[in-house]
This record gives sequence, C-alpha cells and structure tokens, in this order.
Amino acid sequence: MVGRSRGPQRDRRGSRPRSGRGRFTLAEVAAAVGGRVHGDGSATLLGVAGLEAAGPGELSWVADETRAEAGAASRAGALLVASERAASGKPAVVVSNPSLALARWLELSHPPARPRPGRARGASVDPTARLGAGVSVAAGAVVSARARIGARTVVSAGAFVGEDAEIGEDCLLHPNAAVLSRCRIGQRCVLQAGAVVGSDGFGYVWDGSGHHKIPQLGIVRVEDDVEIGANSTIDRATLGETVIGRGTKIDNLVQVGHNVVVGPHSVFCGQAGVGGSSRIGRGVTLAGQVGISDHVTIGDGAILTGQAGVARRGRVPAGAVLSGMPALPHREFLRRAALVGRLEAALDRLAALEKRLTPGDTETE
Amino acid sequence: MVGRSRGPQRDRRGSRPRSGRGRFTLAEVAAAVGGRVHGDGSATLLGVAGLEAAGPGELSWVADETRAEAGAASRAGALLVASERAASGKPAVVVSNPSLALARWLELSHPPARPRPGRARGASVDPTARLGAGVSVAAGAVVSARARIGARTVVSAGAFVGEDAEIGEDCLLHPNAAVLSRCRIGQRCVLQAGAVVGSDGFGYVWDGSGHHKIPQLGIVRVEDDVEIGANSTIDRATLGETVIGRGTKIDNLVQVGHNVVVGPHSVFCGQAGVGGSSRIGRGVTLAGQVGISDHVTIGDGAILTGQAGVARRGRVPAGAVLSGMPALPHREFLRRAALVGRLEAALDRLAALEKRLTPGDTETE
Amino acid sequence: MVGRSRGPQRDRRGSRPRSGRGRFTLAEVAAAVGGRVHGDGSATLLGVAGLEAAGPGELSWVADETRAEAGAASRAGALLVASERAASGKPAVVVSNPSLALARWLELSHPPARPRPGRARGASVDPTARLGAGVSVAAGAVVSARARIGARTVVSAGAFVGEDAEIGEDCLLHPNAAVLSRCRIGQRCVLQAGAVVGSDGFGYVWDGSGHHKIPQLGIVRVEDDVEIGANSTIDRATLGETVIGRGTKIDNLVQVGHNVVVGPHSVFCGQAGVGGSSRIGRGVTLAGQVGISDHVTIGDGAILTGQAGVARRGRVPAGAVLSGMPALPHREFLRRAALVGRLEAALDRLAALEKRLTPGDTETE
Repeated sequence: MVGRSRGPQRDRRGSRPRSGRGRFTLAEVAAAVGGRVHGDGSATLLGVAGLEAAGPGELSWVADETRAEAGAASRAGALLVASERAASGKPAVVVSNPSLALARWLELSHPPARPRPGRARGASVDPTARLGAGVSVAAGAVVSARARIGARTVVSAGAFVGEDAEIGEDCLLHPNAAVLSRCRIGQRCVLQAGAVVGSDGFGYVWDGSGHHKIPQLGIVRVEDDVEIGANSTIDRATLGETVIGRGTKIDNLVQVGHNVVVGPHSVFCGQAGVGGSSRIGRGVTLAGQVGISDHVTIGDGAILTGQAGVARRGRVPAGAVLSGMPALPHREFLRRAALVGRLEAALDRLAALEKRLTPGDTETE
Repeated sequence: MVGRSRGPQRDRRGSRPRSGRGRFTLAEVAAAVGGRVHGDGSATLLGVAGLEAAGPGELSWVADETRAEAGAASRAGALLVASERAASGKPAVVVSNPSLALARWLELSHPPARPRPGRARGASVDPTARLGAGVSVAAGAVVSARARIGARTVVSAGAFVGEDAEIGEDCLLHPNAAVLSRCRIGQRCVLQAGAVVGSDGFGYVWDGSGHHKIPQLGIVRVEDDVEIGANSTIDRATLGETVIGRGTKIDNLVQVGHNVVVGPHSVFCGQAGVGGSSRIGRGVTLAGQVGISDHVTIGDGAILTGQAGVARRGRVPAGAVLSGMPALPHREFLRRAALVGRLEAALDRLAALEKRLTPGDTETE
Repeated sequence: MVGRSRGPQRDRRGSRPRSGRGRFTLAEVAAAVGGRVHGDGSATLLGVAGLEAAGPGELSWVADETRAEAGAASRAGALLVASERAASGKPAVVVSNPSLALARWLELSHPPARPRPGRARGASVDPTARLGAGVSVAAGAVVSARARIGARTVVSAGAFVGEDAEIGEDCLLHPNAAVLSRCRIGQRCVLQAGAVVGSDGFGYVWDGSGHHKIPQLGIVRVEDDVEIGANSTIDRATLGETVIGRGTKIDNLVQVGHNVVVGPHSVFCGQAGVGGSSRIGRGVTLAGQVGISDHVTIGDGAILTGQAGVARRGRVPAGAVLSGMPALPHREFLRRAALVGRLEAALDRLAALEKRLTPGDTETE
C-alpha cells in the first residue's frame, strides 16, 4: 500500500495516494473486509477502479445484480462480489455487501491525511476558546470566544467557529466552512467547503413601510455522524433549534430553513431545499433539486424524486414515493405523463366522433 | 432579561442569550410594544416560544386568524394577540400586529451582540481604506484599497471588501461574505455568511473557436435595508449597475444575474434564480426555487409560487399570481392539474362512445 | 482612454474605470477590433453602453438582426454593427461579429487590474509550495504544501489552494474560492468568489445501521480556459477524475457531482445541477436550474431549457433540444402544454356527445 511505503512523513504532511493505487493481494483484501477468497488469492493488485475503467491489475466491485453484466464484461483483475456466480470466473472476494467492502478497503488502504495538531501560524483562536486534545486549526481559520471544539477535530483554512459554538470530537471542517454563534455540532461530523451552519432564518413581518426582520435567536443543532455538503446552508431557528438528525447526509448547495427538524439517516441530494418549520422524518430521501415548502411534514422513509415539489403545509405519508410538482405518487405521475402523451390522438378521435354524429356538415368542414 | 443579568461584558463580547429566555412581566411587554394588557399583567414570564412549544411560563403569539385554534390549544402562559377573543382566556397583550410586536419584543429583550469596534489582530485593512467611527473588522477579514465603510458597520471573520467598494453605515457582513471591487452597499444592510456581491456576470460570445468572455465592467448597487442570504450570489453588470432595491430581502442560495434591476421591498426565497437583464418590480415575491429567465419583466406585487418558471423575454403583469413551468395564473395551473387527473376516465369514456358507435365491432374488441 | 490617463499607478493598485467610460474615436475602435468605419470616424466618444441606456456620446452595439429595431431607436452616438444597414444612419464600425468586437474593445480599453505580484502580508504560503513568476497571493489566502501555481496566476483574499493541488498559468481565483487537495486546474481558468473545486462526492452505502461514507479518493481536473461561477461546487471523483472540459463555462451556484465528465465548450447556467457519473458532451447547454440526474448521457450540442429535468440513466441524443420534467423534445413539450390548455373544452365536448347519445337522459341530467 502506497500509504505505508511512503513512510511516517505521510500522516503529518497529508499526501494522499493518487487514486486508489497501491500493491496488495486479494487475500489481504479478503482478510481486511471479512470476505472469502474465490480463486487465486495471491495475485498482486495495484489499485482499485470502477468496472468500466479497471484494468487487469486492478480490483473492482459488482455492487448488485444490475451490475452483473458489466462485471462479466470488465477487464478487472479481481472483483468484490456478493456471490461466486457474480465473479464470472475472475478471482474474487465474496462478501455480503460488495459496496460496503469497497468502502472499507479504501478506508484501510488510504487512511485520510491528518494535519499536524495544534494552531498553525495565521490561525486565530480566541483565548477563551477551549480546544480538545489533538485539535488542528489551520492558517486563516478563526475560532471565536468561548467556542468549544472536541478532540481531534480539524478546522481547515478559512473555516470559522462562532462565539459559544460547540463542535464535537473527530469532526472535519473543510476550508471556509462556518459554524456560527452558539450552534452545536455532534461527533464525527463533516462540513464540506463553504458550508454554513447557523445563518439567520428568513423571517420578516410587514410593518406598514417595510419588511421588519424578526430576530433569529435560536440555533442549529447537528447531531452525530452528519455530513453537510459544500456551500450548503442551514438556518438557525427563530427560537429554539433547527435540528439535523443523527447520520443524515446533506449534499452540496442544499438549503434548510429555520425551525426545520430532520430525522436521523435522511439523505438530501444536491440543491434540494426545505422551507421553514418543516418536519422531515427518518430515512427520508430528497433527490436533487427537490423543493419542500414551509410547514410541510414528510413521513419516515418517504422518497421525493428529482425536482419534485411539495406545497405549503403539505403532508407526505411515510414510505410514499412522490414525483412532480405538485408532487404525486410516482406511478400516478408516470401515468399522467403517459396520458398527456395520448392527448393529441384522443382529441382527433373526439373530433372524428363529433363529425360522424353531424353527417350534414361533412362536406363543409 | 438574561442580557442585563450577564453584565457589561455582554455587549462587547457578543454572548447572546440562548433562546429568548429571560424574566419579565406581561405589563413590561405591553409597554415595550405599545399594546394593551388583557388579564393579569403582573405574572412573571421566563421566555418566548412558538404556540406548540410554549409552556406555562412562556409568552407566545397568535399571528392571525388561522392560528386561533392553535392559540387556544397552546400551553403558553401568555399571548400576543390581535383581539381579546384570540386570547382564549389567557393573559395577553392586544396589539394590531402580533408578529410585529413579537419582533419588537425580541429585539428589545435580546439586543444583538456587537463586536468590539476596531481592527482585530489578524484583520487586513489597506492603509488607503476609510473606516467610519465604530467600524469593526474581525480576524481574517480583508478590506482592500480605497474601500469606504460607514460608521458602526461590522466586517466579520473572513469577510472581504474589494477595492473601491463602498459600504454604508450599520451594515453587518457575516463571516466569509464578499463585496467585490467597486460595488456599493447602502445603509443597514445585512450580508449573511458566504454571500457574494459583484461576481462577474455570465456573458460570453462565440468567437469561432471558443466562448470569448465579455468583460464585466459594471457594479452591483445594493440600496438601503437590504438583506442577502447565505451563499447567495449577485452578479455585477456588464456595464452600468445591477440593482437590488431598498428593503428587498433575499434568502439563501439565490442567484441574481448581471444587469438585473430589482425594485424595493421584494422578497426572493431560497434558491430562486433571476437571469440576466431581467426587471423585477416592487413588492414582488419569488417563492423557493423559482426560475426567472433572462430579459423577463415582472410587474409590481406579482407572486411566483414555488418552483415556477418564466421563460426568456416573458412578461408577468403586476399583481399576477403564477405557478408551474411554464408559469400560468395560479387558478389555471390548479384547474389544469385537476383536469389531467380526470384524463384517464375521459379516455375510457371516449373509447366507450367509439364502441357504441361501431356496434359490429363489439364482439371482436 | 481612462486607463492611460490614470497613469502607471493603475496597473498596480487595481482601480478599474467605472463603467466603460473614456475618451476615444470611432476610428480607434475600428482599428482595434479590425472593422471598417461607416460615417464619421473622428467623432469623440466617452463610453460604451447598451442600446437602451446609451446617450449621444456613447458607443453601443447591434448584436444581431433581432436588435435592429432597438438599434434604430437608440440614442447612441455610434454603433458596432454587422452591416451598414444596421447602422440606421449613425456613424458605425462594421464587423462580422459586433458582440465579439464589443468584448475586444472593452478588453483593450479596460485592461483588468492586476494585483502586485508576490505574497501579501497576511498570505499563508507553505514553504514547499512552488509559485511561478508573477504569481500574486493576497492577504488571507492560503497555499498548502506542495501546491504548484503557474506564472501570473492571482490567488485573491481568502482563496485556498490545497495540498498537492496544481493550478496553471494566468488563472484568477477570486476571493474565498477553493481548490482542494490534489485537484488540477488548467491555464487561463477563472474561479469566481466562493467556488469550490474538489469537495467530496456524495457517496454512501448503507451498512445496516447508518450511511457509511465511501472514501472519495479521486480528484477534479479542470482543463484550460474554464470559468466556474460564484459558490458553484465541483465534487472530486470517488476514484479517478471528475473532468470539466476545455473552454466550458459554468455559472453561479451550479453543482457538478463526482465522476462527471463534461466535454469542451459546454455552458451550464445558474443553479443547474449534474448528478454523479453523468457524461455531458461537447457544446452542451444546460439552462438555468436544469437538473441532470446520475448516470445520464447528454450528446454533443444538446440544449436543455430552463428547469428541464433528465431522470437517472437517461440518454439525450446529440443536438436535441429538450424541455420540462421529464424532459421532452421542446416542440413536443410546447404541443403538450397547448393540448392540456384545450382539455377543459374537450371534456365539455365529450360530455355533450355522451348526452346526445343518451336521449332519454336529457331531462334528468
């Protein structure tokens, strides 16, 4: 593995191997991911790549049944598979979940670079801030008064931690990420570059001559194991808390309004948006560019497909799969689209019927 | 009030009370917001919370008629209401606009933290920049040559003020907000974290071998009392000005293209986008994820509902309420959606008619 | 020209003329853009403005036939035109492409301000980073270990260059733009403020109790002459590369997922989004708020109009023009919208036919 061969400098200076390349055997992979070798376990592999890109010296993976054909056609030297059959005669490691095994092998073979602990020159840390053991604060980062940062958390260049903010252990704030005053981040959270946690909610009341701002005095509470994407924005509550539940993953450029409560293990894809005071359940999926208006309730496990929209005070039942705007059950959405596709012919048929029933007009029409 | 009890450190060091909690009487609230006490004005309250969350020691508010039932069901100890009837027997302050009274009470009871005036260590201020009295520039902020910043304006950590830029008095630039060269910001404006004012407009001309950039030489002019949301982006004009009118409020992740002119008191909700050279009137509402193409004109007071889209060179009359893509009058949008829902049955009826009119085919169909 | 008249200070200190204003003659313009003077070439002009805004002392341009009427109505003192006829009797410069001539004249008359080369006080540059001749790194910018930056590239305030990242010559990173570790940027690229290149791709696998992150070990490779808009985000590949092809222009708040490959000279307008592993051809146009799901293939020269959506594993043929969600050929999209508009009348006609065919029911209906 490249990591080991580069020696102890690596951990300190942060050089990550290029793209999954290193030297290892299939047996090593099997041992690491808890799988069973099928075929020759001693062959040397040089890296990991997707089925289409992988060459004879590389390991790839067959995520599930739908990829079986691509697996058979692949030039990969070895495969992570869920069954011997899926190996298509190649050397393989059989595991119950090939994608998970891939993730684990990549973690083991490419341990993430850790910056040197401590405060870099050019970091600004208020003397009243409390930093746990092994915390790293990079040049250009700012940690404000009374902020608390848990052990081993990394605050990258240009990142900001506001006054009285609290960040758990083993978190990673990428460059220019911002956790504003008093907000709370759990353990093992990741904020991608430019993510904002704790911007003011969008609340105004017309006072006769202008939009009068309603002070936004609450906070955002992000539970453990949450990831927030690049340049995504999570507004603080007016009073109380905006909550992002444990294990929820949020992609880039997503907007979450004030007072929203998101359950655990939900997934918000790129550019999705959630209006103020909505309640999103557990294990909900919002696909890309989905729009949830304010005061909406989304039940556990519901799926909104790409660009779907749910109107103000809407209510989506648990487990529903909805599409379109206004959102309909996905099958109904597809059926209606198909019916509209038949509309031109139907109008012709209607006109033909009318004509038949008005014989005297035949010639003049 | 918590603020007072925390002593003089508070104003300087920026600790805001947690979430609207403090000790006060209903009579104090009535005096502060210009309302009338209904019931016992001497009872002590400890904080402010929404109707659903409020407990017996807390003040809440009944925003309007639609919230009357929630008001009656609330456990709140006291209410801000528009009429004695809306108090549902609870102690209350009667005011013409409960939401506005709430905003004012929160302002008074939670005066915003002000950072220490002056340039923090780690702030970079060009010697040719001119800063008004009481301006605060935080660590990691950069103020460029010849920039002018009005009295009491706060430039937070990582915020950027470009060369020759001009910012009025009493503005607040949150962390990593950027006002690029020569752009002008009025008085009392707020830029949330990561907001960008003055990025280049998206203008190219094909030169036979590539997209040739048209220099973007204009500026953005933001008038007084404007708020721009987190990570929103306002492009500078090609020539002349992109204008955001007085009192207009822009939510997070909103895009405003070059040469756009927005009138006063408009509201752009999260992830709305406006293409180049469009003219948006006064008091216009763009709901979340609305898309306005380029060279569109939107009349005063028009409302575009969530995810609505207006095509290139479109024209929306004053006062219109439009939905869908392409945008239609809202009632027409709803009617068409309902009609499409009846389409399957209609096609069945059409087939039945056809069958009746072709009796010979009955058996073979 | 203002530039010249301001003397040598200008280039160093960055003052750009206000808005295309300066003193020049039409003959100078013709010489500079390679055009032919029509009418009096000696008249003095003071600036450049659009057709509607231009006054008698200003130069404007008639981009194409569709602007001929506006050209004739304009008060501009002189015009850039494609034919003498388009000059409408005004002094003019005749060129094959007036918009391109405009761009060139603006470039020549307003050479962009260049910051002083070198590292500003308050810039943080790792000693192992390699900077080419004339590179400028501003206050608050951070250049990490082993990064390489080509000659004359400008790294503005708050911008970030990650470890082992590589940036070509003559690039411009606006304030708070970030190129994360190991990513590669070509020559003459522009990153607008807050743009993020190299955020982690959004990849997880369910492990029975939570979403397990798949390490994102790849990079982003941005080819030459690319522009990336303000607060846009480009995710790094899981393995291998996310690629933005040569000459492609990306507007603000655009999201490009991991493993995406974009061909040369494509154009992504504001708030468009592309899901993971999609392949976008050469010269493709994604209008504002277009959503491309994951594993989609878009052929060369295809155009997706505003807010169009292409579903997972969709395939758009080369040259297609698609609209709506799900995306349909644009003409079909328009036809269906028109047909739905006729649906109410059609249902009435259907009911009328049914009534005629059921004479006995006439009175009771």
